[in-house]
Amino acid sequence: GGGPAMSPTEPEPPAKRAKMAVSAAAGAKWKFMSAWFCPYAQRAWIALNHHRVPFEKIEALTLKQAPGEALKDVKGYEKHPLLLKHHPSGLVPTIVDSEEAQPAVYDSLTCVQFAEDLAASGAVDGRSPLLPVEPVQRARARMWTDWVDKNLCAPYYSVLVPKEDERRRAGFDKLLHGMRTFQASIKGPFFLGEELSMVDIAAIPWAYRIFSCGIIDLYRGPAFALDSEELAPLLRWLEACLALDSVSATLADKQRLVDTYKRYADGTAESKVADAVRAGKTANDHE
Amino acid sequence: GGGPAMSPTEPEPPAKRAKMAVSAAAGAKWKFMSAWFCPYAQRAWIALNHHRVPFEKIEALTLKQAPGEALKDVKGYEKHPLLLKHHPSGLVPTIVDSEEAQPAVYDSLTCVQFAEDLAASGAVDGRSPLLPVEPVQRARARMWTDWVDKNLCAPYYSVLVPKEDERRRAGFDKLLHGMRTFQASIKGPFFLGEELSMVDIAAIPWAYRIFSCGIIDLYRGPAFALDSEELAPLLRWLEACLALDSVSATLADKQRLVDTYKRYADGTAESKVADAVRAGKTANDHE
Repeated sequence: GGGPAMSPTEPEPPAKRAKMAVSAAAGAKWKFMSAWFCPYAQRAWIALNHHRVPFEKIEALTLKQAPGEALKDVKGYEKHPLLLKHHPSGLVPTIVDSEEAQPAVYDSLTCVQFAEDLAASGAVDGRSPLLPVEPVQRARARMWTDWVDKNLCAPYYSVLVPKEDERRRAGFDKLLHGMRTFQASIKGPFFLGEELSMVDIAAIPWAYRIFSCGIIDLYRGPAFALDSEELAPLLRWLEACLALDSVSATLADKQRLVDTYKRYADGTAESKVADAVRAGKTANDHE
Repeated sequence: GGGPAMSPTEPEPPAKRAKMAVSAAAGAKWKFMSAWFCPYAQRAWIALNHHRVPFEKIEALTLKQAPGEALKDVKGYEKHPLLLKHHPSGLVPTIVDSEEAQPAVYDSLTCVQFAEDLAASGAVDGRSPLLPVEPVQRARARMWTDWVDKNLCAPYYSVLVPKEDERRRAGFDKLLHGMRTFQASIKGPFFLGEELSMVDIAAIPWAYRIFSCGIIDLYRGPAFALDSEELAPLLRWLEACLALDSVSATLADKQRLVDTYKRYADGTAESKVADAVRAGKTANDHE
């Protein structure tokens, strides 16, 4: 596909617009295209909440659940026309201003940084900065954020997606190693200390899925169990994160979330993440 | 390996220190560990130059050139102890303060952002910002920077590294498609308009290698030739970039640079980029 579009595309015809079923959040400056089950979208959601950015949340990926079909057996989803209009591949999170007058912002960590920039510019009455002020510490926070992406988020899919036990095991070992490294560097209560940061936001959605929802144990069995005693510092960190209103407001129902991962776990997921992992690549910011 | 070290490691023993052969740049606040042939290090170098960050440049990867051996036949390189001390995998660019009192900054785009943050914080007397001020435009610049990484830099290695003509051809098609998309969005003279930005810096080292050094034509032959008429806007953009003193100061001798790519082109490269591409993964910020 092309690069990020440099200018907004043509407005949708009225017929398509009528189907958009967006909730009426009067006065919201930003349209936030999300999906309740998507951990990448959840990152953006937490950052928007944290900085009190006024947004209208639009569920832009609708699971194709037939009448009588259980959620866990749903295969694909439909994409909202507003999403397809503003993201070349129709991925969430995607953020656009309410007038759709400017080009869209997407990619989860770019959306987090966008919320931070809105707060830094004074455009919103944000809370504590998500990155330290001092340049070296700022750089370190960015490095840890990228590190979380590669060492905690990507291996999660390497445990769930492959069909071969050996590959699952290698993914699990990488995930466990990542967890040990991460928790050894937590300053507490949050990763960088007293305040929530971009590093925490990068990790929270996967930690919630692993520890609060127990998705790995559930789909991969006791051989892939995590030792809550060994990982106690990580669990304390997660508890501190989940206690924040900006985070708790983004937590999907556990059982519903568990059900959606059946698509990954039984190899039927029709998603870019699953395709990438099956092809032997690293999971990344795909949906 | 572990995550980014949160605190500086122990000082090296004196015996190792004596070998460090760093050039004496009195008063430089930062030690910049670079390699003259490395495009990722060149990104950091351009940004440090642009923002007039006072640094001492250390050649941290020394090609193992035996007496009488041509540069193009050199296989591996030795890593500077200072680099191994501050980067867990010994990759450039890596930046550390002159006292080595703070943890190191690495990953090329993080280094570029670091130079930008030094200027924004007033720590150095920098030139024009490398990112726009307005939050949506800032986000778009970040998105384009990531896009350049995936669609211009990574495919370059997909042309040079694989042995199969089919894979080289697929890499070339992706690269050409990336070039067309990029040049269609250049505002001129620089990508975002009047001033050099992070998007330009992300792309310059590869554009220099492809167009100024002719590395692809040279190693892959006329079937992989680029049409300078079709790519005229891209060539004008490159010319504007190379005319800047912050950029021209970072340009390696063309023939010397061409010679180093023989390692990739004949399949003997001992580098993380080459390993990754051979394994079917996407090239990324490896050296």
